[in-house]
Amino acid sequence: MADRDWPGCARALKAVVLDLCGVLYESGEGDTVAIPGSVEAVNRLKSSDLQLRFCTNETQACRDKFVAKLQVAGFDISVSEVFSPAPAAVSVLKERGLRPHLLVHDGLLPEFDSLDKTDPNCVVIGDAAEKFSYQNLNDAFRVLIGLEKPVLFSLGQGRYYKETNGLTLDVGVYMKALEYACDLEAEVIGKPSPMFFQSVLNDMGLQPHEVLMIGDDLVNDVGGAQHCGMKGVQVRTGKYRPSDEKHPTVMADGTVDDLAQAVDMILSQRGC
Amino acid sequence: MADRDWPGCARALKAVVLDLCGVLYESGEGDTVAIPGSVEAVNRLKSSDLQLRFCTNETQACRDKFVAKLQVAGFDISVSEVFSPAPAAVSVLKERGLRPHLLVHDGLLPEFDSLDKTDPNCVVIGDAAEKFSYQNLNDAFRVLIGLEKPVLFSLGQGRYYKETNGLTLDVGVYMKALEYACDLEAEVIGKPSPMFFQSVLNDMGLQPHEVLMIGDDLVNDVGGAQHCGMKGVQVRTGKYRPSDEKHPTVMADGTVDDLAQAVDMILSQRGC
Repeated sequence: MADRDWPGCARALKAVVLDLCGVLYESGEGDTVAIPGSVEAVNRLKSSDLQLRFCTNETQACRDKFVAKLQVAGFDISVSEVFSPAPAAVSVLKERGLRPHLLVHDGLLPEFDSLDKTDPNCVVIGDAAEKFSYQNLNDAFRVLIGLEKPVLFSLGQGRYYKETNGLTLDVGVYMKALEYACDLEAEVIGKPSPMFFQSVLNDMGLQPHEVLMIGDDLVNDVGGAQHCGMKGVQVRTGKYRPSDEKHPTVMADGTVDDLAQAVDMILSQRGC
Repeated sequence: MADRDWPGCARALKAVVLDLCGVLYESGEGDTVAIPGSVEAVNRLKSSDLQLRFCTNETQACRDKFVAKLQVAGFDISVSEVFSPAPAAVSVLKERGLRPHLLVHDGLLPEFDSLDKTDPNCVVIGDAAEKFSYQNLNDAFRVLIGLEKPVLFSLGQGRYYKETNGLTLDVGVYMKALEYACDLEAEVIGKPSPMFFQSVLNDMGLQPHEVLMIGDDLVNDVGGAQHCGMKGVQVRTGKYRPSDEKHPTVMADGTVDDLAQAVDMILSQRGC
């Protein structure tokens, strides 16, 4: 269990990790619109003595594409500061000599350019949205069921997310579908996978207790970070719901209105 | 546990229940082709003193349509002898005053003609095949997530089945997808649901131990029937696989090459 020392814990922090969608901006169609105060909050963190990284389960576009959008929206952010599931998956696949059959959004395909995809011996699924047709899911299923030891990677395990026109099914739903069809357990790459949070910690050379995660998703951001020994604070923006504050298994170290308020509290504890 | 008294148990039987696909005929595109000896086997059962019913998870077509195809293939079979999930679902929905949002094959829609489908307060999914698009699954999800107490009915829970062009995802896969998305448990209508087998027993006015189920699906036909106290015999046609004979949890009361052999053994035990 996390102790409830928030915002007192901020004094001992060496780094902050931010989720993107729902913390820096609200998702929607077309332009990326910053949540009020979040551009300045990122700038204040960058001017402080804290390290800063960004950690997202975004799998509909390549990192350079969505980072460019955030820059247009005013954020001081670069690709090297952003951790997302696709590059992490590419590392794992290369390490294990695996050739993927991909069921991912067209916008994500370039991330996998460096991999051999002939005669696939595993399947990788991401948030493929409209590409989750019956035919495409069946093709992925046939690859898996034809393997002696089927291996399925899922870029995240979200149930659904909010689009401007309503709630939308996320990759986790199709992961469960293929798990049942093939009687297997997928390997999740992305939040809340401990391996994914650990790769961010490794990049900064820090121990978990020195790092605070700020996210809008109680289970995947806050719970995932806490599971690794990090602190986790939830913002009341993005996919936050009031019921999160009485969740049966995950309790945030703190809950704040938005990123601006979180950064105010962190920096004032540190005397900045 | 079922005792292994096969074919001895045949002496005490009062009825036989047959699965259709994989027992009477092999599935495939176009015409329904009878498995050799199965037309005569059905005729021999009909001429005996045993009651006979058919119990199928077919949900791509209305009963009158697939029964007509079986008649063309030479089978002596009528709609009133056939139990399938859609009519069972209609009974349950009427009983509980539910108005369904349907995600089923177009061929099955007429079965639901008698139900009010305005302002839906539950979702019914069947083997919708190509209709399991991202859009359609998302629409079903939005109906469920918008209900105070979401109710999902699934017409069967199969993982996949064999088509002439390869293995094909079945309704159970999409049931699991929606269960995960909405954090709920679906109500399964069809085999192996005990309620479904019980409706066949009620129709015949018999006790479970007086009835033998013959099917090609070890878990849904044989295991489902045994779970209700019926005997269950598996045929080595249809979706039978040799590994079924050393299944970790389900053991058939008997395994036979095909329906013709099963009927031979049953009738010879009874001195017919």
